Amino acid sequence: MTRLRLDLAYDGTDFSGWARQPGLRTVQGVLEEALARALRLADTPQVTCAGRTDAGVHARGQVAHVDVDAGDFPAEQPDIDLTALARSMRGLLPEDVAIHRIDVAPEGFDARFSALSRRYRYLVCDDARAWDPLRRREVLHHPRALDIDIMNAAASPLLGERDFAAVCRPREGGTTIRELLTLEWKRGEGGLAEMHVSADAFCHSMVRALVGLLIPVGEGRKPQAWPAEVVAQGIRDSSVQVMPAHGLVLEEVRYPDDVDLAARQTVTRSLRGS
Amino acid sequence: MTRLRLDLAYDGTDFSGWARQPGLRTVQGVLEEALARALRLADTPQVTCAGRTDAGVHARGQVAHVDVDAGDFPAEQPDIDLTALARSMRGLLPEDVAIHRIDVAPEGFDARFSALSRRYRYLVCDDARAWDPLRRREVLHHPRALDIDIMNAAASPLLGERDFAAVCRPREGGTTIRELLTLEWKRGEGGLAEMHVSADAFCHSMVRALVGLLIPVGEGRKPQAWPAEVVAQGIRDSSVQVMPAHGLVLEEVRYPDDVDLAARQTVTRSLRGS
Repeated sequence: MTRLRLDLAYDGTDFSGWARQPGLRTVQGVLEEALARALRLADTPQVTCAGRTDAGVHARGQVAHVDVDAGDFPAEQPDIDLTALARSMRGLLPEDVAIHRIDVAPEGFDARFSALSRRYRYLVCDDARAWDPLRRREVLHHPRALDIDIMNAAASPLLGERDFAAVCRPREGGTTIRELLTLEWKRGEGGLAEMHVSADAFCHSMVRALVGLLIPVGEGRKPQAWPAEVVAQGIRDSSVQVMPAHGLVLEEVRYPDDVDLAARQTVTRSLRGS
Repeated sequence: MTRLRLDLAYDGTDFSGWARQPGLRTVQGVLEEALARALRLADTPQVTCAGRTDAGVHARGQVAHVDVDAGDFPAEQPDIDLTALARSMRGLLPEDVAIHRIDVAPEGFDARFSALSRRYRYLVCDDARAWDPLRRREVLHHPRALDIDIMNAAASPLLGERDFAAVCRPREGGTTIRELLTLEWKRGEGGLAEMHVSADAFCHSMVRALVGLLIPVGEGRKPQAWPAEVVAQGIRDSSVQVMPAHGLVLEEVRYPDDVDLAARQTVTRSLRGS
């Protein structure tokens, strides 16, 4: 078998998320079907991704892998075959999914378990006088002005390794301990409020709950200390709103150098289980 | 009568352009209907805009005016009424049109004839490895790489006042002389090739023909001198492709200081007729 690495982007608006579900349109489903057709496979291949995005969440830097029969890629000219495969996939995929690259994965690579960190961005427009209808699929419209500085002051105590149970929907037997690497708001193009966040990994709905933790501070409805207090409680807090999916984009997945891929995979599997 | 200035934005994808046409969905039509409902007018008011965008062209900085019966705005508190009107319009308009502001227009203001200049942006993605499906409604996908520097070198001789008949679909009796103020390509967010262009005014399909004049130079299919040669001929050239509408956004309309609005209107009317 040969493992391929796929770098891709999608507009999540019309998908029921990444993970394949019977009868629903999902990114994984659409991708696996296109791979089966492009490679003329009898069985649908299984694609594994770095960030299993929820319904409506977008990606610009999603990474996935798939194992295919080495016979489909004559060893003499793998690059040419992969360029042709990428072109063929672009022809087969719908307009809301884009293949950026297809490469032979280095030894020890696993899109999910080798990843060092994931980076997401959440976009909020808090000024009706600057609302851009062209970007309504990726920007949350918020009716009240946000104070970015206060939100950043409230965000910084959340950095580092801690139990994020307060903002996680936990999986059976899974840990809710994560290392939050960056959590920062800034004003971007068109005056949008942008939240940039990265962590080794995120629990289900964690990014949107972090947004829901900081927005009430930014509008002055909650004190600056509230987010850190909620997280310190260590139990799921129903007063934290999980913000809408459409403002969220998976921007980037980082991996270690090739020599460390297998070791990273072992560490992650021991932390989070398979 | 009171003249109101409207600042607005729209996603042009699902509109048959700005100008009202029977049986078609147009920005002017949607806007005039919403104004009639918000102000409870018996007759649909007539809205005039600065840049009558074609089908599929977007706007982030469109400016328009409408004359309404002064009785609809009690003189005591015009600002409050206008804030309420803007809010009411936001509730009535579909999600692909946004009202940014509504103000009482200064004396001598005419959205079309008082304007000093219009600025447009055209977005091209020339690298399939960076294609962002989230922005497919406002970015042209181009299959070959563009050399921005050569395009800029080819663009600069077009600046200034000249007859743009080669890239204009002329109106009966209208002039095709325009003053091109800026015409510049640069690399923007996500590696996109962005063309920024401004002029006192543009003829019909002129911006998209300028893009069609420069792209063949950027891919090396036409020499750097070709655009200036085509324009110098002074007659419509069928070898110039009018590029697709969806890459184009009206970004800004500039007006003179209030004291010069009426004078500017007089100058423009004498140049271009009513």
